[in-house]
Amino acid sequence: MRIKTGLKFAAVLVATLFQMTLKAQTMNTKDNQTGIFPKGEKATQNFTGNAWVKTLVANDDTLTTIISNVEFEAGARNYWHTHPAGQILICTEGTGYCQEKGKPIQTLHAGDVIKIQPGTEHWHGASPTSSFTHIAINVNTEKGVVNWLKPVTEDEYNGK
Amino acid sequence: MRIKTGLKFAAVLVATLFQMTLKAQTMNTKDNQTGIFPKGEKATQNFTGNAWVKTLVANDDTLTTIISNVEFEAGARNYWHTHPAGQILICTEGTGYCQEKGKPIQTLHAGDVIKIQPGTEHWHGASPTSSFTHIAINVNTEKGVVNWLKPVTEDEYNGK
Repeated sequence: MRIKTGLKFAAVLVATLFQMTLKAQTMNTKDNQTGIFPKGEKATQNFTGNAWVKTLVANDDTLTTIISNVEFEAGARNYWHTHPAGQILICTEGTGYCQEKGKPIQTLHAGDVIKIQPGTEHWHGASPTSSFTHIAINVNTEKGVVNWLKPVTEDEYNGK
Repeated sequence: MRIKTGLKFAAVLVATLFQMTLKAQTMNTKDNQTGIFPKGEKATQNFTGNAWVKTLVANDDTLTTIISNVEFEAGARNYWHTHPAGQILICTEGTGYCQEKGKPIQTLHAGDVIKIQPGTEHWHGASPTSSFTHIAINVNTEKGVVNWLKPVTEDEYNGK
């Protein structure tokens, strides 16, 4: 009977310690991964679903570059748009989508880096089941930054 | 005697599980934090100490931008240098230093983003006691990328 009590106590202790360390692990990942930048402002235009945009580098005449950190909730994406001078996306968290007009949807993961060529109609955002964060870099802004077009329909988002 | 054996077994089990989860936590941090990009090539020129450079975006005539992920070991730094068109650093891990000629050393942490103006003589690297990782963005590369100068001396690195 006393052995059973000892083992029961040990089992509860093990379970509690496991939960504590798993929780620490999750918090740690969140802080270090998407949490190195403030969440930014909620996008109120040109997005479907919830997304937050934090400007990291504002435009100027010398470096002619805008850099933003964008966090998309699962299912959220921006409208179809073009960049007159192109854009670079550095994916840092979650699973995302990017599609250029007339091409299949491309799935993106943390560590992926893609170039959007000038004038190419496209959209990007989270996959339906995962959040997604990328750093967006607009270069050569003297040529223009972005031209927003139509929302991405549910059929387009679902690859139909 | 059997109770003691049971408790001893439980204690060993708890210790082992703790070690396993702590190890998983460390690996997880490493993978998610600096590990979303491959470590890249060890820098063999223009650096003091150990640093690794992974090119994320190669130069081209359209976007005229080079992006690299640079990991510095504690104490490692690059030489004094200038960028003809400037550079942007996005700090992602650890504690680093950046100094412009004639100014005090600036301490950098994950989430800090700084602009280096065109032609400004400067260096960057890890602090003496922490590794440091940044994404380096060279824009408008048609104007030039980098001009390397002299090593940063121990006195300069130590702010003397």
